[in-house]
Amino acid sequence: MDLMIGVDLGGTYTKFGLVNEKGELIAENYVKTDTSVTYTAFFEYLISQIKLLHTDTAPLSKLQGIGIGAPSGNSLTGHIENASNLAWAESIPVAKLVAKYSNLPVAVTNDANAAALGEMKYGVAKNVDNFISLTLGTGLGCGIVINGKLVTGQNGHAGELGHTIAVDNGRPCGCGRKGCLETYASAPGLRQTLLQLLIESGQKSVFSNVNPDDISAKDITSEAAAGDKLALLAFNRTGEILGRKLADTVALLNPSLIVISGGLANSGNLILEPLIFSSKKTFSVFLKEQFLLRFLR
Amino acid sequence: MDLMIGVDLGGTYTKFGLVNEKGELIAENYVKTDTSVTYTAFFEYLISQIKLLHTDTAPLSKLQGIGIGAPSGNSLTGHIENASNLAWAESIPVAKLVAKYSNLPVAVTNDANAAALGEMKYGVAKNVDNFISLTLGTGLGCGIVINGKLVTGQNGHAGELGHTIAVDNGRPCGCGRKGCLETYASAPGLRQTLLQLLIESGQKSVFSNVNPDDISAKDITSEAAAGDKLALLAFNRTGEILGRKLADTVALLNPSLIVISGGLANSGNLILEPLIFSSKKTFSVFLKEQFLLRFLR
Repeated sequence: MDLMIGVDLGGTYTKFGLVNEKGELIAENYVKTDTSVTYTAFFEYLISQIKLLHTDTAPLSKLQGIGIGAPSGNSLTGHIENASNLAWAESIPVAKLVAKYSNLPVAVTNDANAAALGEMKYGVAKNVDNFISLTLGTGLGCGIVINGKLVTGQNGHAGELGHTIAVDNGRPCGCGRKGCLETYASAPGLRQTLLQLLIESGQKSVFSNVNPDDISAKDITSEAAAGDKLALLAFNRTGEILGRKLADTVALLNPSLIVISGGLANSGNLILEPLIFSSKKTFSVFLKEQFLLRFLR
Repeated sequence: MDLMIGVDLGGTYTKFGLVNEKGELIAENYVKTDTSVTYTAFFEYLISQIKLLHTDTAPLSKLQGIGIGAPSGNSLTGHIENASNLAWAESIPVAKLVAKYSNLPVAVTNDANAAALGEMKYGVAKNVDNFISLTLGTGLGCGIVINGKLVTGQNGHAGELGHTIAVDNGRPCGCGRKGCLETYASAPGLRQTLLQLLIESGQKSVFSNVNPDDISAKDITSEAAAGDKLALLAFNRTGEILGRKLADTVALLNPSLIVISGGLANSGNLILEPLIFSSKKTFSVFLKEQFLLRFLR
């Protein structure tokens, strides 16, 4: 049996798994993403743990290659570049290091592009030539597929929908600019919107007397589902802003599918309904073309 | 000698020309776009005039095919669909009709995509794999090339940058929505901005006592070049809005070139400088990657 290794390199944990040709996960494990050691040491350790998982769970299988999704992973250079949550260095030669320690072919891309490729190969976007994949979590990731191919752009930086401007002179973003979509349409963005509404609206909410530090996007989701008006309003605002930017993206690229995954996608219709409403209002092609929006996990 | 026929179908005139393999124009002519007759009659007449041009100017050459750029021309269907300035019908089967009357292979696309293909084949975007072509005139057209291929999208509707939202609840657009980029970044958009500034700013201008009907984008361009402050301000506003949306587009697609042509491009640095300033402010990739912006004719 031939297996591939998939690695999800995150700011806190690095998850990895063995995957067969059908895309099924055979075994998985994780290590802490330890930025207190050098990145060379970390990747050597990561590969040793992957080898351990292999010998422990599927020793008779042959490993074919390693695919790595990482924040700011650049598929053209194989480097991680300027990742704000990976403090090692400005540019980390991940592909080269991992190939050295593993003796396997290595592909690197950013996590949002990896999600798009996964949807295209094994997921809901199978046989779909033109689609957009969004990952809504601590950030807003975006992978674009056109004519059956992932769009990398000239330097591997395509897909930065999260850093298009949603609100003029809006919230400060980690990237240094203001009003980026990611600061609104993400788990922290939803939380920020709720906190703002708590102060501005004066409306009563189950969150009215809760310490802000104790409020998570998950809490807002469950309270909105239970009918809290302020939590619902926070979802409406979030969906409305995201819907407008998606309408712009549809105007530009005319895809036939938008796939939304990531933690915030669990909220389902809470975010989907205002999103569709505002995108329809903004760009009528949504109405005409039986646009599909699907939420995963 | 083999020749191709290029047709530019406009709301007022339909221009056509014979072009050799180097992209050189051998002969050209035009007819009025007569929507008082049926479209069948018009296209039969158009082809007869094209044949006349051929026999008059290059009778020994062989015609290879016809390429048609038309507003709302759809390359996937070969139809013109819902063109607001062609009152014939909702859907006009241009490719079929022209093929019937000419007995030649026919390709149809919208005028902005035709411009992009022209730049890729013969213009400044030769050998450029990822670029965006803008035509700034009575409207804002946009053709997108990714991985060396024109992006049509799932239904041939890609490239509608002109109908992404530049200003929330902004100017009414012919498409029925409000605040579309085209209502600001186009010749009529520039004119509208100047008229608005005349009323709102109270500033003195050479246009202060001119009948608004007598003010054209061309006039604004020449007066801005001569130093009229209000005309310059109108260009600054126009460039600023366009620059912001281009920055969003660059974030999404990471092209290596943006080509700007069309009547308004004649204004050169008047629009280019505020455009680059605002796009840099919005998306720093402009700074990093030696972005090229070129104006043609």
